[in-house]
Amino acid sequence: MTVSNSVQPVAGFRFAGVACGLKPQTAAYGGRSLDLALVVSDEPCVAAGVFTQNQFPAAPVLYDRQVLRRDPAGIRAVVINAGNANACTGLQGEADARRMAQLAEEALNLPANAALVMSTGVIGMPMSMDKVHKGIRQAATAVLAQKGWSPEGLETAARAIMTTDTRPKLARRALQRASLLGIAKGAAMIHPNMATMLAVVVTDAEVQVGTLEATLRRAVGRSFNAISVDGDTSTNDTVLVLSNGLAGPVDEAAFESALTEVCQDLALQIVADAEGGSKVITVHVTGAAAEDDARRVAQTIATSVLVKTAVYGGDPNWGRVLMAAGNSGVVLDPTRVALWFAGDGGAEFQVVAGGTPLPYEEAQAAGIFACTNLTVHLDLGMGNVEATAWTSDLTHEYVTLNAHYRT
Amino acid sequence: MTVSNSVQPVAGFRFAGVACGLKPQTAAYGGRSLDLALVVSDEPCVAAGVFTQNQFPAAPVLYDRQVLRRDPAGIRAVVINAGNANACTGLQGEADARRMAQLAEEALNLPANAALVMSTGVIGMPMSMDKVHKGIRQAATAVLAQKGWSPEGLETAARAIMTTDTRPKLARRALQRASLLGIAKGAAMIHPNMATMLAVVVTDAEVQVGTLEATLRRAVGRSFNAISVDGDTSTNDTVLVLSNGLAGPVDEAAFESALTEVCQDLALQIVADAEGGSKVITVHVTGAAAEDDARRVAQTIATSVLVKTAVYGGDPNWGRVLMAAGNSGVVLDPTRVALWFAGDGGAEFQVVAGGTPLPYEEAQAAGIFACTNLTVHLDLGMGNVEATAWTSDLTHEYVTLNAHYRT
Repeated sequence: MTVSNSVQPVAGFRFAGVACGLKPQTAAYGGRSLDLALVVSDEPCVAAGVFTQNQFPAAPVLYDRQVLRRDPAGIRAVVINAGNANACTGLQGEADARRMAQLAEEALNLPANAALVMSTGVIGMPMSMDKVHKGIRQAATAVLAQKGWSPEGLETAARAIMTTDTRPKLARRALQRASLLGIAKGAAMIHPNMATMLAVVVTDAEVQVGTLEATLRRAVGRSFNAISVDGDTSTNDTVLVLSNGLAGPVDEAAFESALTEVCQDLALQIVADAEGGSKVITVHVTGAAAEDDARRVAQTIATSVLVKTAVYGGDPNWGRVLMAAGNSGVVLDPTRVALWFAGDGGAEFQVVAGGTPLPYEEAQAAGIFACTNLTVHLDLGMGNVEATAWTSDLTHEYVTLNAHYRT
Repeated sequence: MTVSNSVQPVAGFRFAGVACGLKPQTAAYGGRSLDLALVVSDEPCVAAGVFTQNQFPAAPVLYDRQVLRRDPAGIRAVVINAGNANACTGLQGEADARRMAQLAEEALNLPANAALVMSTGVIGMPMSMDKVHKGIRQAATAVLAQKGWSPEGLETAARAIMTTDTRPKLARRALQRASLLGIAKGAAMIHPNMATMLAVVVTDAEVQVGTLEATLRRAVGRSFNAISVDGDTSTNDTVLVLSNGLAGPVDEAAFESALTEVCQDLALQIVADAEGGSKVITVHVTGAAAEDDARRVAQTIATSVLVKTAVYGGDPNWGRVLMAAGNSGVVLDPTRVALWFAGDGGAEFQVVAGGTPLPYEEAQAAGIFACTNLTVHLDLGMGNVEATAWTSDLTHEYVTLNAHYRT
């Protein structure tokens, strides 16, 4: 049952997750519907965040931005709840987010502005602050009672931030004497714009705040910002990284690689656990004239409802891939494009060359489209730049889940 | 069964639809699976077209653009087939589109460059030109045999251009001594960008070519370009208008109103017949600072998968409307927005004021969301400009239809 027994600790960080009644009594873990998590650092951390670009950012996003702008070097904790997004909740929502941080600071005996806040769940509902208060006290008690590393604490924290996720998402990389450990949640309303849903990465590597911010932004661009489940960008998207420096300085390029790997690992876990998803689709665009072109074409294919339903049905309807590419807003030359597919086996199967369909065996194409992992490789023939996007298929189950999310 | 018995003729235009084997033997009409139509004018017409902005335009789109650029004043016919889109078919596809026009010109005894071509259906398959040839000869024979106005000809033409449409789409408006009559098809891959799917409007009003082009472009902007079924823009989108001038000149403003009404009527018929759709959603955005802002916000809401699945489920999950609005790329002030819903009855029900949720009875909101026609009214509080977009809900049936479109 537990996925975190084998995960090694990162020095100086502790986790806990509890049930406080914010989430319906479903998807329970050990009989409890976990819905509030704490990530706590024994030492003050340098922190950086990347947040949603949605014009209606949730209250916790507004709060965290403010705290990180004021002092990104004294962070000690992140409090996260599921079940209520505290989004579109007006001034009351902003007061509630601030209060969540204060309650965490009180319960953990921390100075002011030491806690960040994340929320996920239903939009437009007031927070039940009594439940939040109870949950924070419980979680703080659990964290403070931990003697040494607690796999149970990590497991419950990773589960407490889940909404329609079917499994917790963790990723870890070692880096010289240091290490990085991340948890994330997300299954729908996934179409990141500068960030996706909720993720926290902690590290004991010593990194300067400016470096941490710039590195996180680049890592997110190649991970969370390259995935899509349904084309809808959440009001709550937040990725935080906390560095306590206990392991001392590390090579900056190696740190960027490790952070990018952790972010990609978590992002792909989100796609693999996409609401109702039955397949993972990798869209690899090569031969672009510019990186932005490659990225836009890849993301337009990855968000096409018609591509995603065809993949669900196992129908090698490759015309829809070109149709979608043609809608990206990027100027293309139809006579230069080439298109391949690959299934779980990995061997590429070409269907278009120079903009013209190649003759092929329908059965072979159908066999590739029946695979759980499908790679679409489109070469634009315009240059040497490439980009990759990841998405899930669009299924009956997705429609079922989202037709009645609140009820 | 026939919808066109009550439709009055437009002087000098004739229609016919036949079955030539391009479409599978399903959705038959009178025992025949109609799939090729002719629209024929007794007199040379001034014509204008608006075409897809997809970067992989289908061969008929390339052909029509070329003909209209060369001589938009000698058009006598439009030949339209369903079952094969002649898109992503390379140079052979371009030759086939040209050949379709020539076959129509031969069969109708017309001069060169008098016929335009439209195709709809599967992408990436070669045209069966033998079948097309047979169909054109049959349809020409039918047209030439008509003595006077043929409701049967109009009915069969409107049905021959259908793919997954469940019903033919016609619209007519009288204008002084003249009139306008349009037919259209479309049920999916509907997210027009300068045009949508296939529509032909004929009129006996006398209109100059420059006026006709400009008027069509504006009318399409407020009709076909304001609807979306699945966010995917077709490779074949084409709207043509043919004016034979038999009724003499008309007031230009009145002509624009009438053409806009015909286009909106046809566009809404497409949304009402959206693949798998069970509801029509009207998104009315007011209080924008600029028309482009209003349009982008309305269209972003109308293409949100999460909004469309919530409406399907009858779940008044209004937070998703704000989430989608926040993703349009338009700068908004969350504290200024107001949101209302209205059902078939028409009375508006407010859920948000000044960016803050209002208390309301869940049962009343659920009642509105159970209606077949739902209006979403979002006021941005930024200015006085408004725009409307129309869409359908996203249903299990849509996924079923698109998972196996070709098979």
